[in-house]
Amino acid sequence: MGWWSKDVHSMDDLFVHALRDIYYAENQILKALPDMVVKANDPKLKQGFEKHLRETENQVKRLEEVFRLHNAEIKGMDCPAIDGILEEAEDTTGEADNRNVLDAALIFSAQAVEHYEITRYGSLISWAKLLGRPECAELLQQNLAEEIAADKALNELAEGGVNQRAAA
Amino acid sequence: MGWWSKDVHSMDDLFVHALRDIYYAENQILKALPDMVVKANDPKLKQGFEKHLRETENQVKRLEEVFRLHNAEIKGMDCPAIDGILEEAEDTTGEADNRNVLDAALIFSAQAVEHYEITRYGSLISWAKLLGRPECAELLQQNLAEEIAADKALNELAEGGVNQRAAA
Repeated sequence: MGWWSKDVHSMDDLFVHALRDIYYAENQILKALPDMVVKANDPKLKQGFEKHLRETENQVKRLEEVFRLHNAEIKGMDCPAIDGILEEAEDTTGEADNRNVLDAALIFSAQAVEHYEITRYGSLISWAKLLGRPECAELLQQNLAEEIAADKALNELAEGGVNQRAAA
Repeated sequence: MGWWSKDVHSMDDLFVHALRDIYYAENQILKALPDMVVKANDPKLKQGFEKHLRETENQVKRLEEVFRLHNAEIKGMDCPAIDGILEEAEDTTGEADNRNVLDAALIFSAQAVEHYEITRYGSLISWAKLLGRPECAELLQQNLAEEIAADKALNELAEGGVNQRAAA
């Protein structure tokens, strides 16, 4: 069941599986972000989601380069974690009629996505180095840096007024 | 669908919903951890999961105290995010026959759980403060501190030998 299969016996297998997992995840996030752009009320939050949509497009390209450098077939595999995280995120975009509370909930949802990516890239970078793939680690590090920055920006928006307006 | 419902119109509603979400999540993690203890090969990893099992039991009690302090009914609600994260984690515990790779995969899985909790507690603490519930924020902060420490300990195990053995 799921992405794990019995043919994962080595760190190399684990790396490729995790790469396919995050490749699927980034592509699912690409599909989810346009709706979050539309739903966001705060202009800076809307711009933040737009910026992250463009970043995510580049992240997918970097992952494809990592596959090529590692001589692995470029493909995604189902990732129940991101599906579950995005299912919760989608719920927040369709239901709330108070736009300030919705903005707080959008940030809450988007930060769960960012944290998922941050932990996955952390493991992938560590494994790429051990597998003698510093060039892959470097590309993955670029994606990680963008995810950390996106999470920080969301936090600043939340603490900088969005949560306050939602609580008013 | 999901945990979101149309009656979430205020920060207070959002806080209680997110509290029920993490309460469900912590209880699901309580059910998942014993299997991770059994599957772990590295003695320090096994001890780490055992320690976190005891911490999680206390975290559930702290959440119940937060519900009481906020005069909200103690109950969980389905959380597709943690269900998805744990589905991936469970997959890793049943399939690999290389125990060193399995240890790396267990850490990979457990860190996704920790990061999910870290982001959820971050939002809850911020909201509790805005809702005038510093005593709730303090209890949630104690849970957050334990999740951050658990994630750090997992990272130290991964970098301190588990990943290296998995790559050997």
